[in-house]
Amino acid sequence: MTKSNPGHFFEDFHVGMELRHATPLTLSAGDISLYRALTGSRHALYSAATFAEANGYDGLPIDPLLAFHVVFGKTVPDISLNAVANLGYADGRFPKAIYPGDTLTAVSEVIGLKQNSSGKTGVVYVRTRGFNQTGDEALSYVRWVMVNKRDPGAPAPDTVIPDLPDSVDPRGLSFSRAYAGWDNTLAGSAHRFGNYEIGDKINHVDGMTVEEAEHQIATRLYQNTAKVHFDGHGQKESRFGKRLIYGGVVISIARALSFNGLANAAEMIAINGGTHTGPLFAGDTVYAWSEVLDKAELSDTVGALRLRLVAVKDQDPGDFTLRGEDGKYAPGVCLDFDYWAAIPK
Amino acid sequence: MTKSNPGHFFEDFHVGMELRHATPLTLSAGDISLYRALTGSRHALYSAATFAEANGYDGLPIDPLLAFHVVFGKTVPDISLNAVANLGYADGRFPKAIYPGDTLTAVSEVIGLKQNSSGKTGVVYVRTRGFNQTGDEALSYVRWVMVNKRDPGAPAPDTVIPDLPDSVDPRGLSFSRAYAGWDNTLAGSAHRFGNYEIGDKINHVDGMTVEEAEHQIATRLYQNTAKVHFDGHGQKESRFGKRLIYGGVVISIARALSFNGLANAAEMIAINGGTHTGPLFAGDTVYAWSEVLDKAELSDTVGALRLRLVAVKDQDPGDFTLRGEDGKYAPGVCLDFDYWAAIPK
Amino acid sequence: MTKSNPGHFFEDFHVGMELRHATPLTLSAGDISLYRALTGSRHALYSAATFAEANGYDGLPIDPLLAFHVVFGKTVPDISLNAVANLGYADGRFPKAIYPGDTLTAVSEVIGLKQNSSGKTGVVYVRTRGFNQTGDEALSYVRWVMVNKRDPGAPAPDTVIPDLPDSVDPRGLSFSRAYAGWDNTLAGSAHRFGNYEIGDKINHVDGMTVEEAEHQIATRLYQNTAKVHFDGHGQKESRFGKRLIYGGVVISIARALSFNGLANAAEMIAINGGTHTGPLFAGDTVYAWSEVLDKAELSDTVGALRLRLVAVKDQDPGDFTLRGEDGKYAPGVCLDFDYWAAIPK
Repeated sequence: MTKSNPGHFFEDFHVGMELRHATPLTLSAGDISLYRALTGSRHALYSAATFAEANGYDGLPIDPLLAFHVVFGKTVPDISLNAVANLGYADGRFPKAIYPGDTLTAVSEVIGLKQNSSGKTGVVYVRTRGFNQTGDEALSYVRWVMVNKRDPGAPAPDTVIPDLPDSVDPRGLSFSRAYAGWDNTLAGSAHRFGNYEIGDKINHVDGMTVEEAEHQIATRLYQNTAKVHFDGHGQKESRFGKRLIYGGVVISIARALSFNGLANAAEMIAINGGTHTGPLFAGDTVYAWSEVLDKAELSDTVGALRLRLVAVKDQDPGDFTLRGEDGKYAPGVCLDFDYWAAIPK
Repeated sequence: MTKSNPGHFFEDFHVGMELRHATPLTLSAGDISLYRALTGSRHALYSAATFAEANGYDGLPIDPLLAFHVVFGKTVPDISLNAVANLGYADGRFPKAIYPGDTLTAVSEVIGLKQNSSGKTGVVYVRTRGFNQTGDEALSYVRWVMVNKRDPGAPAPDTVIPDLPDSVDPRGLSFSRAYAGWDNTLAGSAHRFGNYEIGDKINHVDGMTVEEAEHQIATRLYQNTAKVHFDGHGQKESRFGKRLIYGGVVISIARALSFNGLANAAEMIAINGGTHTGPLFAGDTVYAWSEVLDKAELSDTVGALRLRLVAVKDQDPGDFTLRGEDGKYAPGVCLDFDYWAAIPK
Repeated sequence: MTKSNPGHFFEDFHVGMELRHATPLTLSAGDISLYRALTGSRHALYSAATFAEANGYDGLPIDPLLAFHVVFGKTVPDISLNAVANLGYADGRFPKAIYPGDTLTAVSEVIGLKQNSSGKTGVVYVRTRGFNQTGDEALSYVRWVMVNKRDPGAPAPDTVIPDLPDSVDPRGLSFSRAYAGWDNTLAGSAHRFGNYEIGDKINHVDGMTVEEAEHQIATRLYQNTAKVHFDGHGQKESRFGKRLIYGGVVISIARALSFNGLANAAEMIAINGGTHTGPLFAGDTVYAWSEVLDKAELSDTVGALRLRLVAVKDQDPGDFTLRGEDGKYAPGVCLDFDYWAAIPK
């Protein structure tokens, strides 16, 4: 009997199934440094303990996206080892700040199943939760993936499609920080909540070329072991003929690029959705643009922007490319990501 | 007079000679993060403080292989700057756990010498010890290297071949952890001591392509300065015409790959031997397989597996390739490493 | 109105103008590990807490060059986003040691301006200071850059050229450490203050090939966002047609290489000047040589060497190449850097 992990196939999942994932991970200042060095992150809230403490944190926190990638990575061996595609995210939340020294553990629950008409694959919906060492829920999100069946003859399960919100209501998140010590100059922008209008599009200008070593180091930092990202020899026989960059690398680089234009929208408080609309490969240059989709009041001193973050490759982000005339994502569009960020008023 | 280090040549060594090495190094959480990001290490014992503390550690320890590479790196300027080949390892032990904040210093003693028949080179055997800041021995191993003579006419020393054990007896290591809090799910495998039989071969399935940047960053992390790993311009004139990847990088990647099939054999407690059987270059993809060579009881709750860890490149590890019909290592076999790992019963 | 940062153009600067820079950064053990892994730094003073504490530090300090790059990086969006060239440094000092946990903030003052005869560009001189979280000045230096005008028709400012010292007087730096616990063997060299003479040239022998991933990771670690280092797609249209390596990467690699010959000159205490005399690109191999320009007594137990550190690429540093017969820097010379280092007597 093989002792390596064969992963789960579509017919192995059932609604209500709980999967506790290996490996718990203690995050540290080392992860903060590496995340910055790999993504180019510059938000003051995640760079300087002084700035974070002046704005409601008990020290320098871990960037929520770093925690997200770590929790996501843990789910790969159990959820998506036999996946064909990662289809979407919804209802992502970050209820508890994470600090160096905290240990994250991840648990997923299957909340939906739908066999595809081909009979060879199906869609699995999971709600994944990350907990800290005291059992507090630190983050939570839904994702759905298309997974191969082991045996195409296995019977189809009853179809269950979870009821997912189009977007998270940021007013329901109990956001408690007052951002009392926010300093525009240190944060890097004069533009606060009131300076952004729904419909605004922001060209983040800068570009970041991604090397094989960079995305591999980042993806291992998150303990994500999906072989498409690492096995260059094996990938020669694949659809693209080469290693594919983990989508989370694209999210984090695009988010870091968005500093230039959205520096004060530093704190991601919810993920509404996200689609990896095209592959990224080593040697490609990532650019990003954002669109303000909505605004919300969180408190007297803090608002929230609902932002569409789009990553494009090897093209001017100032063209604000998203979809072609056929309604499909245009060539070179790699990411369409929808999130809420808190921003001082 | 040159002020750069010329290194020692074969005739500079004598049995009983002690070499205290530069540079002492304080290990930190930053090294733990980098080691994970560079190797793909996922063992819960070295990933999560909670898991480590539940299983007999006083916090998150440093992976013994990381400590090994750091100590090894210190010896390079004194032992192997003028080496032709690294021939073998024996009798490696890790008597004391190392934690972030500990400072490692290394000392080597020459325990054997044998001039080769050519008269141009000789084999130097050293016992190297790594100490923490309180003087406790943290690790110890023997290695032997072939070193050039400065002057082929220098007289040959008396031949002294040290008496080295074929393997370490794990029952003599005073292993004290009970692994009382071991959780298979968090550790990543249902397979414990009783599930492995002598002769079992395990295909670790996954592959890892190594980039120049990755092995260079890792090798500098260990402060190993052997120029074959870094000087691409100089290496154009060398036998391979390019940079050669440090063998320790191969050991650590193969060991990290072995998680998939041996996740519970998390703790390396002794190195019996090891041979770098072929070169690895940037762009090559490392795969690994293991063979259970022996088993031993350590306590009521913990056993040990003696494992052969083989790294191959650009070929299916499920073929379990080791030697050809001529008894020589087959092409593409990069590492034949023999160690003991503790594993819960 | 664009919300991304357009940077300052020449006519936006005036003498006496103060620029507080984003983003404050808390340095950590993670940065120490990454700096070592990216540069190959091996000085015991910045590697081992034990060694640092035995020689006058309150723990393992941050390498002054790492702090320099971090402070420099902060100035880029405000000073050199529209720069044509970085022309020089002067009067660099490190008055306060920095430790993990300290937060650096940077402030620059414009101290000189000179429009070029073309009318299209001008030279901006700034004094930049880095402060720790208690407001102590941790480092300070002058640099001057050639910056584009937005509008060539804008009037020229009055020319102000600051009075800058050719070199820092190390006796004025109040150097207070006695190096009481200096151990040559642990530090890696038998050569102390008395072993170096003015005029000595030292071949540092070793070479380091730099990969795209390495310089990008380093430059992001410093939160330096100058697009010439990252935007491979955009750089296709540039003068060199490819990404240019940040000059600070060259300084740090050359300085790390200088360990081999100058291991005891571990502590950079002042920067007298520096010129990036030629571009470095990924794939190039850096070598270094040094020349002792001057010597000074700091105390009964410590002296200082004024060192010229030269980085060359793809050529033997033992040729000590600097300038051609025409007096210009010779091809392949990348850096001519002038600094003072403390060294035990």
